[in-house]
Amino acid sequence: MFSPHDHALMAHALRLAAHGLETTQPNPRVGCVIARDGEVVGEGWHRRAGEAHAEVHALQAAGVAARGATTYVTLEPCGLHGRTPPCADALIAAGVARVVIATDDVAQCAGGALERLRAAGIVVETGLMREAARELNRGFFARVERGRPWLRLKLATSLDGRTALASGESKWITGEAARADVQRWRARSSALLTGSGTVRADDPHLTVRLADAPAQAVAPLRVVLDSALRTPRGAHVLDGSAPTLLLHAAAARPSDDRFDAVELVALGRDARGLDLAAVLALLAARGMNEVQVEAGPMLCGALFSAGLVDELLLYVAPVLLGGDARALLALPPLARMADRTRLRVHEQRVVGDDIRLLLRPD
Amino acid sequence: MFSPHDHALMAHALRLAAHGLETTQPNPRVGCVIARDGEVVGEGWHRRAGEAHAEVHALQAAGVAARGATTYVTLEPCGLHGRTPPCADALIAAGVARVVIATDDVAQCAGGALERLRAAGIVVETGLMREAARELNRGFFARVERGRPWLRLKLATSLDGRTALASGESKWITGEAARADVQRWRARSSALLTGSGTVRADDPHLTVRLADAPAQAVAPLRVVLDSALRTPRGAHVLDGSAPTLLLHAAAARPSDDRFDAVELVALGRDARGLDLAAVLALLAARGMNEVQVEAGPMLCGALFSAGLVDELLLYVAPVLLGGDARALLALPPLARMADRTRLRVHEQRVVGDDIRLLLRPD
Repeated sequence: MFSPHDHALMAHALRLAAHGLETTQPNPRVGCVIARDGEVVGEGWHRRAGEAHAEVHALQAAGVAARGATTYVTLEPCGLHGRTPPCADALIAAGVARVVIATDDVAQCAGGALERLRAAGIVVETGLMREAARELNRGFFARVERGRPWLRLKLATSLDGRTALASGESKWITGEAARADVQRWRARSSALLTGSGTVRADDPHLTVRLADAPAQAVAPLRVVLDSALRTPRGAHVLDGSAPTLLLHAAAARPSDDRFDAVELVALGRDARGLDLAAVLALLAARGMNEVQVEAGPMLCGALFSAGLVDELLLYVAPVLLGGDARALLALPPLARMADRTRLRVHEQRVVGDDIRLLLRPD
Repeated sequence: MFSPHDHALMAHALRLAAHGLETTQPNPRVGCVIARDGEVVGEGWHRRAGEAHAEVHALQAAGVAARGATTYVTLEPCGLHGRTPPCADALIAAGVARVVIATDDVAQCAGGALERLRAAGIVVETGLMREAARELNRGFFARVERGRPWLRLKLATSLDGRTALASGESKWITGEAARADVQRWRARSSALLTGSGTVRADDPHLTVRLADAPAQAVAPLRVVLDSALRTPRGAHVLDGSAPTLLLHAAAARPSDDRFDAVELVALGRDARGLDLAAVLALLAARGMNEVQVEAGPMLCGALFSAGLVDELLLYVAPVLLGGDARALLALPPLARMADRTRLRVHEQRVVGDDIRLLLRPD
């Protein structure tokens, strides 16, 4: 059904879409290419929520050359008036002959875009490089399709599975290149999630520090789970340098002005702490697509045990810390090897002196 | 000094040498190429101790074409009568014009091969692809240069640094492909070393099971550290299916016929068990080049802490076993992160569903 040419042009559209990796939040990353006889006459990508969609940029670039051309778009065009007019109508008005779509979008179902395009005599084909298109927006699809963000646990470990010494000392397990790489993963995240224990132990900034951040980058929301409101005065997460949400148990009430620069929301508790499913439902409702967890073994272990983790971003430093050091994850003991949690190695590469693994539950 | 052509022919000689990976023990793996005007006129590799050296095979294949040709050999030719006549004299007799050598060999120093070649008017050049040639025979060089075999710890771990459950259950952490890969590493080893604890817990065969083993493969020596002679009757390592050396403390004496199929040697003890340096000196004296350790966290940790480990062959299975499971290595606790043991990732690749890391102390 699709020619090698179609593949090449959709691959190009996907590369364009990836330009929006750190800027489109809460929208998906979308790229669009308009081609005639295999030659690109217009291209574009969605830059920022509230601004023009990828198709509009590409149509503007193509001008009259769009008439009779093929449009390659990585996500189903919108059919409803949102903050911008529907792209389906723009494509019809421009007179394109064929629209090739990488992946459908349940959020657009009601819009009737594909029906309108077909009714206008346009050939509509979907599913070209669908997996790659979904992968690029795995956070967006997780949120709109299941009402829960894509949850990524960022962890760093020694070869012997340790994240910190028994003394608690944990900084600099991995090298500089790995730490810079983490910043890139933060930048593409809608939110960075941690617990009050990590705040008290490490006092992280949880901001993005990148020399080459795009001008329109959206700062990830800092989210702190702090059941009893124990985040100390002066903690970096309270400094107002990035939007911050502090989730606490309803029973806890702020007694002073420590929290003036952040938003406080009370949530329900279960036996172990704040209701984690409720935390994620709240983040989804706020439009959070990818949520990156940078926390200690207790919170990471609880999220993992609850089946809420979509991927592990694991940096393995080629060092040995010894048996007394702290474990990577706090997980309930296994009785039988057959009960072990299997993951799949999605990607593995060397970053500086360290190894980076991207793993997903099998 | 060396042309691209020289490099290509030496690379070819190194590939030939690698054919002997599982058969030359205790000799080094050596390859030889004879070329005239860049065209190969003869090639060969050393197959088995006591049989012809690589140079002899290559000279036989070249015949009269060797006259005036260049010989590429991965290791300094022998100059003394061993079990075979000296290759230096064979090269002189054949009338080669130039000899290019990848790496020298201290074991040959006294032979005077290079001097004799030069005295015969042959151009002798050394050091082409020296690192690769030393890497191929890292066991041989370790033994002859420092009197201690190359020690490789083979370990398998979960992502959270565990080798077994708290119950002791340890089989099948890694997948089938990784287990087959281990057989290949066993096959190139001169000896496979384990402890009596592992024998009692897992009853390993410590033999090589490979469908495509070379006909002349040398079975690795099985070495069991069993201070108190506690290896039970019927253990696979006592079955006589491969040469086996059981090292015990002088105070322990065999009280029955359990050990009839193996060789027993008494060694000195230190505070923690058998004197590990003495164990390795004994293995070197017996011509062991690469020794692969497949043992539990105590023995592996002790070898590592003593600075006797040259490389870690670490299979990382993408599974989580939880915090109650057994640690990878028993190492003394670290007080400061700055004291951690750093390793270098020499190689990393995916084997089946698992990740294989080859690491060396930095």
